[in-house]
Amino acid sequence: MQLIALTFTSPLVPDHVTVLDATGKFVMPGGIDPHAHLAMNGLGMETVDDFFSGQAAALAGGTTMHIDFVIPVNGSLTAGFETYIKKAMKSCMDYGFHVAVTKWDEVVSKEMEIMVKEKGINSFKFFLAYKGVFMVNDELLLEGFKKCKSLGALAMVHAENGDAVYEGQKRMIELGITGPEGHALSRPPSLEGEATARTIRLASFVNTPLYVVHVMSIDAVEEIARARKTGQRVIGEPTAAGLALDGSGVWDPDFITAAKFLMSPPLRAPGHDKALQAALSTGVLQLVGTDHCSWNSTQKALGMNDFRKIPNGVNGIEERMHLVWDIMVESGQISVTDYVRVTSTECARIFNIYPRKGAILPGSDADIIILNPNSSFEITAKSHHSRSDTNVFEGTKGKGKVEVTIAGGRIVWENDELKVVPGSGKYVEMPPFSYLFDGIDKLDAKYLSSLKAPVKRFKSTA
Amino acid sequence: MQLIALTFTSPLVPDHVTVLDATGKFVMPGGIDPHAHLAMNGLGMETVDDFFSGQAAALAGGTTMHIDFVIPVNGSLTAGFETYIKKAMKSCMDYGFHVAVTKWDEVVSKEMEIMVKEKGINSFKFFLAYKGVFMVNDELLLEGFKKCKSLGALAMVHAENGDAVYEGQKRMIELGITGPEGHALSRPPSLEGEATARTIRLASFVNTPLYVVHVMSIDAVEEIARARKTGQRVIGEPTAAGLALDGSGVWDPDFITAAKFLMSPPLRAPGHDKALQAALSTGVLQLVGTDHCSWNSTQKALGMNDFRKIPNGVNGIEERMHLVWDIMVESGQISVTDYVRVTSTECARIFNIYPRKGAILPGSDADIIILNPNSSFEITAKSHHSRSDTNVFEGTKGKGKVEVTIAGGRIVWENDELKVVPGSGKYVEMPPFSYLFDGIDKLDAKYLSSLKAPVKRFKSTA
Amino acid sequence: MQLIALTFTSPLVPDHVTVLDATGKFVMPGGIDPHAHLAMNGLGMETVDDFFSGQAAALAGGTTMHIDFVIPVNGSLTAGFETYIKKAMKSCMDYGFHVAVTKWDEVVSKEMEIMVKEKGINSFKFFLAYKGVFMVNDELLLEGFKKCKSLGALAMVHAENGDAVYEGQKRMIELGITGPEGHALSRPPSLEGEATARTIRLASFVNTPLYVVHVMSIDAVEEIARARKTGQRVIGEPTAAGLALDGSGVWDPDFITAAKFLMSPPLRAPGHDKALQAALSTGVLQLVGTDHCSWNSTQKALGMNDFRKIPNGVNGIEERMHLVWDIMVESGQISVTDYVRVTSTECARIFNIYPRKGAILPGSDADIIILNPNSSFEITAKSHHSRSDTNVFEGTKGKGKVEVTIAGGRIVWENDELKVVPGSGKYVEMPPFSYLFDGIDKLDAKYLSSLKAPVKRFKSTA
Amino acid sequence: MQLIALTFTSPLVPDHVTVLDATGKFVMPGGIDPHAHLAMNGLGMETVDDFFSGQAAALAGGTTMHIDFVIPVNGSLTAGFETYIKKAMKSCMDYGFHVAVTKWDEVVSKEMEIMVKEKGINSFKFFLAYKGVFMVNDELLLEGFKKCKSLGALAMVHAENGDAVYEGQKRMIELGITGPEGHALSRPPSLEGEATARTIRLASFVNTPLYVVHVMSIDAVEEIARARKTGQRVIGEPTAAGLALDGSGVWDPDFITAAKFLMSPPLRAPGHDKALQAALSTGVLQLVGTDHCSWNSTQKALGMNDFRKIPNGVNGIEERMHLVWDIMVESGQISVTDYVRVTSTECARIFNIYPRKGAILPGSDADIIILNPNSSFEITAKSHHSRSDTNVFEGTKGKGKVEVTIAGGRIVWENDELKVVPGSGKYVEMPPFSYLFDGIDKLDAKYLSSLKAPVKRFKSTA
Ligand SMILES: [Zn+2]
Ligand SMILES: [Zn+2]
Ligand SMILES: [Zn+2]
Ligand SMILES: [Zn+2]
Ligand SMILES: [Zn+2]
Ligand SMILES: [Zn+2]
Ligand SMILES: [Zn+2]
Ligand SMILES: [Zn+2]
Repeated sequence: MQLIALTFTSPLVPDHVTVLDATGKFVMPGGIDPHAHLAMNGLGMETVDDFFSGQAAALAGGTTMHIDFVIPVNGSLTAGFETYIKKAMKSCMDYGFHVAVTKWDEVVSKEMEIMVKEKGINSFKFFLAYKGVFMVNDELLLEGFKKCKSLGALAMVHAENGDAVYEGQKRMIELGITGPEGHALSRPPSLEGEATARTIRLASFVNTPLYVVHVMSIDAVEEIARARKTGQRVIGEPTAAGLALDGSGVWDPDFITAAKFLMSPPLRAPGHDKALQAALSTGVLQLVGTDHCSWNSTQKALGMNDFRKIPNGVNGIEERMHLVWDIMVESGQISVTDYVRVTSTECARIFNIYPRKGAILPGSDADIIILNPNSSFEITAKSHHSRSDTNVFEGTKGKGKVEVTIAGGRIVWENDELKVVPGSGKYVEMPPFSYLFDGIDKLDAKYLSSLKAPVKRFKSTA
Repeated sequence: MQLIALTFTSPLVPDHVTVLDATGKFVMPGGIDPHAHLAMNGLGMETVDDFFSGQAAALAGGTTMHIDFVIPVNGSLTAGFETYIKKAMKSCMDYGFHVAVTKWDEVVSKEMEIMVKEKGINSFKFFLAYKGVFMVNDELLLEGFKKCKSLGALAMVHAENGDAVYEGQKRMIELGITGPEGHALSRPPSLEGEATARTIRLASFVNTPLYVVHVMSIDAVEEIARARKTGQRVIGEPTAAGLALDGSGVWDPDFITAAKFLMSPPLRAPGHDKALQAALSTGVLQLVGTDHCSWNSTQKALGMNDFRKIPNGVNGIEERMHLVWDIMVESGQISVTDYVRVTSTECARIFNIYPRKGAILPGSDADIIILNPNSSFEITAKSHHSRSDTNVFEGTKGKGKVEVTIAGGRIVWENDELKVVPGSGKYVEMPPFSYLFDGIDKLDAKYLSSLKAPVKRFKSTA
Repeated sequence: MQLIALTFTSPLVPDHVTVLDATGKFVMPGGIDPHAHLAMNGLGMETVDDFFSGQAAALAGGTTMHIDFVIPVNGSLTAGFETYIKKAMKSCMDYGFHVAVTKWDEVVSKEMEIMVKEKGINSFKFFLAYKGVFMVNDELLLEGFKKCKSLGALAMVHAENGDAVYEGQKRMIELGITGPEGHALSRPPSLEGEATARTIRLASFVNTPLYVVHVMSIDAVEEIARARKTGQRVIGEPTAAGLALDGSGVWDPDFITAAKFLMSPPLRAPGHDKALQAALSTGVLQLVGTDHCSWNSTQKALGMNDFRKIPNGVNGIEERMHLVWDIMVESGQISVTDYVRVTSTECARIFNIYPRKGAILPGSDADIIILNPNSSFEITAKSHHSRSDTNVFEGTKGKGKVEVTIAGGRIVWENDELKVVPGSGKYVEMPPFSYLFDGIDKLDAKYLSSLKAPVKRFKSTA
Repeated sequence: MQLIALTFTSPLVPDHVTVLDATGKFVMPGGIDPHAHLAMNGLGMETVDDFFSGQAAALAGGTTMHIDFVIPVNGSLTAGFETYIKKAMKSCMDYGFHVAVTKWDEVVSKEMEIMVKEKGINSFKFFLAYKGVFMVNDELLLEGFKKCKSLGALAMVHAENGDAVYEGQKRMIELGITGPEGHALSRPPSLEGEATARTIRLASFVNTPLYVVHVMSIDAVEEIARARKTGQRVIGEPTAAGLALDGSGVWDPDFITAAKFLMSPPLRAPGHDKALQAALSTGVLQLVGTDHCSWNSTQKALGMNDFRKIPNGVNGIEERMHLVWDIMVESGQISVTDYVRVTSTECARIFNIYPRKGAILPGSDADIIILNPNSSFEITAKSHHSRSDTNVFEGTKGKGKVEVTIAGGRIVWENDELKVVPGSGKYVEMPPFSYLFDGIDKLDAKYLSSLKAPVKRFKSTA
C-alpha cells in the first residue's frame, strides 16, 4: 500500500526541501542570502544599496530573505542593533541579523545575552582582520566563543590574520604598489588559511559550532575539510563572487574596473574558484552567501592613490541564485535538490528558521520562486536592480532564470518586473540552539568523563 | 502569510525527510539496510539467516527494506539473479538487489544491460579481494566502470588488495598464526586504504560515481575525504559493526567468541571506530549498512585450525537502527534529522527509490517506525531474532528503542512482538540514473572541451 | 685510480660528517644539544643544574656543546646577555646562546643587531605561550621575524597558543583539577598545532627560516611536514623526552612522580612519541634537543596545590645521546650516519659553526666521543650527574653507551669517570647567515618580479 | 685546541660530502645519474645514444657515472645482463646497472640472486605500466619485493597504472586524438598517483625500501611525502626534464617538436614542476635522474599518425648538472652542499658505492668537477654532445657551468673540449644492503613481537 494521509499532528522537525516541477520549470523555496551588508557605513560613507534597493535587487534575483550584520556603535551591540532596526524599516523583503562583536567587557557580554533572549539574534560575528577597527585578539575570541556556546548562538568569523594583513599593506605601500592589486597582494591566501586554522582549533577547544564566512581560498577549504573529517561542526560559506570569479580583475589597468573587484578576503588566483565549487558540490562547504556590499565608482575612487582607502565590497545579492544555478547545476556539478539546499534550506536550518523558511510546506512562509532552466540570463549594470553603477559580473551570461518570485505569498517579480513595497519586509527572529547545538552538552560530558581527573594524590618523600 | 496549501500537481523531486514527534517519540521512515547477505552460500554452506528470518530480525529492529547482493553462478549474472529471486520468495519485507560482477566477457556485459533494463537493478559490485574467487583486476574494473556509467548504474567496490591479502594469509600461516587473529593480521588497514585509493582514482578516470561498501578504517576514510574535497562523487558506507566495535574480539582466547567477530575487511584497532563515527557525522561518509552475514558457531568452527576456513561475516540487520541511534544521536554526534538521513533517506536517494522509500510523504510506501528515545535496549543472542547462536554486540546496552514498525502499512512489530508473513515482502525495482548521475554528461563534455585536442599539425623538416 | 691527496687549499664548505669505527665502536663528533636551560630562573627559584653541573652531566652523556637561552632582564637583551655570560663562567664545556625576545621597541630592535654583530648570537626565540610573562602577539612576531631576516639570524618559536592555554588553565582550576594532570589537560596538542601552523605561515609571509623548538605532537609534525613539502625552510626539533616518553606520567598518584614529568608543551598521549620518531627518521624533523631544565622535588612541590605553580621542565642533557641511539639506531629506525646528523652535525650547520663543531676533520675542534653499540646503559637518579633528585627516564635501560668523551682535545669522560674543570668551557660565537639563508634574497627577488605590480593605471569615466 | 690529525685507521663509514672552493669556483664530486637508458632497444629500433656517445655527453655535462637499466631478454635477467655488458664495452665513463624484472618464475627468482651475489647488481626495477610488454601485476610485485628484501636489493618502480593507461590510449584514439598530446592525455597525473600510492603500501606491507623512479607529478609527491612522514623508507627521484619543463610542448603544432617532448610518465601541466622543485629542496625527494633515452626526429616520426608508436624518451644526461644548478641553486632554493647531495652523494649512498663515488676523500675514485657559478650556459642541439638532432631544453640559458670534468683521475672535459676514450669506462659493482636496509631486521622483529599472536586458544561449548 502507499501512504495516503498522515494523521500525526505533531510539529514537524527539520529537513524538508520541496522542489516542484512546473511544466519544465522548478518551483522552489526562495533563496536566503546568509551574508549581505545593506546600508552599511564605512570610511565615512554608506553603501549605495540600502534595505530597500538591495532587497528589491534580491527579489528580482530569486532571493526572498537576507541576513545582515549589525555593526556595533562604539562597541555597543544595543546601539548597533537599534541603528540597524531603523535602517531596515524600508525593507521590502524579510530579513534577519547577525551581530558583530568588536570589543569585550561585561557590558558586551550582557548585551549578547539580551540580543539572543530578547532580540531574535542567534549568531555573532568576530573579525580577525581589520586591525584597529573590528579586529579581535584570541583572548576576546575565546571569551566570545564561550559566550556564544552558553547562549546557543552561532559564532561566525571573518578569517584573515589582521596583523599580517597590516604588515602586508605596509609592504605594498613601501614597494610603491598603491593600486587595487596591492590589496590582493597584501593579503594572500595563506593568511586566510592561518586564521581559518586558528579559529577552527579555538572553536574546537571551546567545543562550539563555527561558521566561517566568505571562504575564498583553497587554503581555507583545506582547513575546513580537515576539521570536518574529525567530526567538528564547522560551516563554510563561499560567496557568489568567490565561486564565479578569479582575482585577475584588480590588475585591470582601468582603476574603476580594478577597484570594483576589491573585497576582503580578495578574489584569488584561478583555481581557487574551481576548488570552492568542488568543495560545495560534496558538502565540504554548505551554503552560499554574497557579502553583497555595494559601493559605486565615485566611492571606490576615493582610494585612487591608496588601495587602503578603497571601500571593500562587491555585489551579488541579485546574481547569487542565477550564478549558483549556472555554475553548479547547469555545469553538472550538483543536482537540483542540492541547489535548493545550498541556496536556501541549509541556511534556514543553520539559523534555525526552518521550515518557516527554506521549505515549501504547510506552515512555511510562502516564499517561492519559479526557475526556468531553459531560459538564459545576462548580467549587466545597465539592467541590474542595485543602485551601483558597476557590477563585478558584468557581461556574464548563463542558463537558468528566476521568472517568478513570490515573497510572503505576494508575487513580487514576474515578467521582468518588480512589484515591491517599502516596509513590507518583516524582521525574522531567529531562535538559538539550532541543530548544530544538538548533543553539544553530551559531547562535553563525554569529554569531562574522559579526563580521568582530578587524580587522587599522595606525596612521596622523595 | 503562511503557506496553506500547494496546488501544484507536478511530481515530487527528491529530498524529503519526515520526522514526526509522537508525544516524545519520533515517527520516522523505516530503515533501509543497503548491505546485507541473506541465504548466502559460501564454503559449501549457507548462512543461517535466510530471507525470512533475516528480514524478520530487520523488522524487529526498525528496518523495513534491505538490499542484498546477487552472487553470479559461474560468472552468470542471469543465473545468479534467478537464484536470488527464488531465495527471496519467502520474504516478509521489501528488498532490492545489487549484482556482483566477477568475470568479464561480452555475455556479462550484455547481462549487465539486461539487469538494468529489465530486472530492476541499478548497482553492480566488484570485489578487489577474495583472490581466485570473486576478485577482479584493474582491467575488468575499468570495463565494469565504463559499463556501469553507460547504464546509469552505480559501481560498488569491496576495497582490499586481494593479492596482498593472499600474501598476508600465507605469511600468517607460515608464522603459525592460524587462529582468528591471523585473519585480521593478514589484511591490515593499509590494504583497505590502497584499494580504496585505487578504485577512487579509476572511477574518477572513467568519471562515474563510486560506492565504497563497508568502510572500516581511517585509511579508507582519508581517501574518501580527499576525493570528495575535489568534487568527486564517492559514497562511503560504514557498517553497524564498524561503528560500534573495535577489532580486539578476534584475540579472545575462546575460539568461538573470537571467530564470531571475523569479517572482511576486519574490525580495526581502537580509534578507527571513532574516526568512522566522526566521518559519518559530517557527511564524509553518507549512510550506514551492516554487511549482515550470519554464520552460527558450528559453521564458524570449521576454521578451527585455519582462519581461512572460518566463514566471514557478522550480524547487524536487527541492531543497526538501535546502534546508530545510541552511538550517533544519543552521544550527541548527530541530530535526529541526520539519523533519518544516514539510516534511510540517503540510501533511498542513492538507489533511486526516493520518495517511495526513505520518506513519509503522500505517495510513499507506508514504511514507518516509532522510536522512543527514552527507552533502552540490550542486545543478546538469547532474545535476538536472527537464527544465529551468537551476536557480535552481545551485552551492548543503549538508549533509543524502536517500539513500532509499520511495513507497507501493516504493523509488524509492536510490544516486542513480531507479526510477519513469509511472502509478504516485495521486490523493489530500482531504476538507473540516480541523482549521482545528474550532470555527469555535462562534466564529460567539459572535460572533452578542455583537452584542446586534437591539435592540427604540420611536420617540420628537422 | 683512487684519490690519494687533495691539493686545493680553499676553505671547506659544509657537510662533512665523520664516523670512524674503533674496533667495533663508533668514533663520532661529540653531541650538540641545541636546547637546554642551565641556571635558569623562574618562579623566584633557579634550576638545580647550573653551567657546571649541567655541562658535566652532558659530557658524561657524550654531549660536548650546548646552546642555552638568554632570558632578557625586563625585556633588555643586553642585560640578559650579561647575566648569562656571568652564569656561564663556571662552564666546563663549550656553549653558545640563543636570545629570547619578549617585548618590542626600538631598543630591543637595536639590541638584536648588537647581539648578532658583536656578541656571537645568530638566533632569537619567541614564545607564543606563557601569557603575561614571555608571550608575544603576532604583531611583535612579525616585527621580530623581519628583524631576524635582515640580520641573518634564525627565528625560533615555542609554539603553543598562550591565550588558549590560559583559558585551559582556568577551566581546569574551575573543574577542581589542580594536580599535574591539569597541566597537560589545559594545553592539548591542538594548541601546539595551532601555534605551529600560525608561525609557519607568518615566517613564510616574511620569507625567513623558522626553527620550531620542542616539537611534541603529531599536530605540530603535520604542520611542519606540510610546509616543508612546499619548500619552506622550517626546522623541527623534537626532544629526548618527547621521543622517549608519553604523557601518562602526570597521572601518577604520587605527586612528586607526576610533577617531575611536567613540561611545556606537555608530553603527549601514546602515539605522538612514535610519530615523532618516524618524522625524525625521514627528515621531517631534523635534530634532537632536550629542553633540559631541572628542578628538584622540593621545587616541584611548590605547585602541590596548583599545577600552575609547578616549575616546568624535565632533564635530558645527559641522557639524549643514549636515548636517541637506543630508540632510533638500536631499534632500526635510522643509520649510524643519520645518528651523527641528528645529534650533532645538523645542529652545527643550522647554527653555522660547522665544521668547527659537528665534524671530525682537520681544523675541527677535537670534540669526539666513542660509542660502544654493544654496551648497555641504565638511567637512574642515583647515578646520574645532574643535581636533580629525580630523573624522568628513571629505570630506562638500553643499548649503546658513550664510553669516552673528548672535549677540546681533552679526555673528560672515561671508565665512567668525569674529569672536568670549571671555567674550561668556551663561549662559541655563532655567525649569522647560516646555510638556511642561502638564496633567500633570490627567492625575494623572484617574489617581487612575480607581482606584476604596480600596474600602470588610467581612470575611466564610469 | 683544534683537530690536527686523525690517527684512527678504521674504515670510513658513509656521509662525506666535499665541496671545495677553487678561487670562486666549486670543486665537487662528479655527478651520478641514477637513471639513463643508453643503447636501449624499443619498437624495433635503438636509441641514438649508445654507451659511448651518451657517456661522452654526460662527461661534458659534469656527470662521471651513470646507472643504466638492464632489460631482460624474453624475461631472462642473465641474457639481458650479458647483452648490456656487451653494449657497455665502448664505455668512456664508469657505469652500473639496475636490472628490470618483467616476469616471475623460479628461474627469475634465482637469477635475481645471481645478479646480486655475482654480478654487482643491488637494485631491480618493476614496471607498473607498459601493459603487455613490461607491466607486472601486484602478485609479481609482491614476490619481487620479498626477493629484493631477502637479497638486500633496492626495489624500484615505474609508477603508472598500466591498465588505465591502456584504457586512456584507446579513449584518445577513439576521440581521434592521435598526436603527441594524446599521449599526455591518456595518462594523467592521477594514474601516477595511484601507482605510487599502491607500490608504497605494498612495499610497506613487505617492509622493504622503495625507490620511485621519475617522479613527475604533485600526485606522486603527495604519496611519497605521506609515506615518509610515517617513517617509511621511500626514495623519490625527479628528473631533469620534470624539474625544468612543463608539458605544454606536446601541444606544439609542429609534430617533430611535439614528439620530442614525449616521455612516460609525461611532462605535466605547469605547477607540477615547481612542486617537484620544492619537494627536492626539503628532502621529500632525494636525488635527480634524467631518464635519458634519446631518439632522433626520424625515429620519433614513426608515430606520426599514432602517438602509441612514438618512441618514449627525452634527453638530459648532459644537461642535468647544469639545470639542477640553475633551477635549484642559482634560484636560491638549495645550498651548494645540497646540490652535491642531490646530484651525486645521495645516489652513491643509496646504491652503496659511497665513498668510492659521491665524495672527494682519500680512497675515493678521482671523479671531480669544477663548476663556475658565474659562467653561463646555453643548451642547443647544435652544440650538445648527444647524437640526437633535437634537445628538449633547446634554447635554455642559465648560470653555472661545469668547466672541468675529471673522471678516474683524468681530465676529460676542459675548455669546452672532450677527451674521451671508448673502453676506458669501468663497470661499478654495487653491493647489496645499502644504508636503507639498516635496521630493517629489527623493525621486522618489532613487528612480529607486536602481533600478540598466535593466541593460545580453547573452544567453548557455545
Ligand atoms: Zn568579512
Ligand atoms: Zn561581510
Ligand atoms: Zn565485502
Ligand atoms: Zn558484503
Ligand atoms: Zn619552551
Ligand atoms: Zn626551552
Ligand atoms: Zn620508466
Ligand atoms: Zn627509464
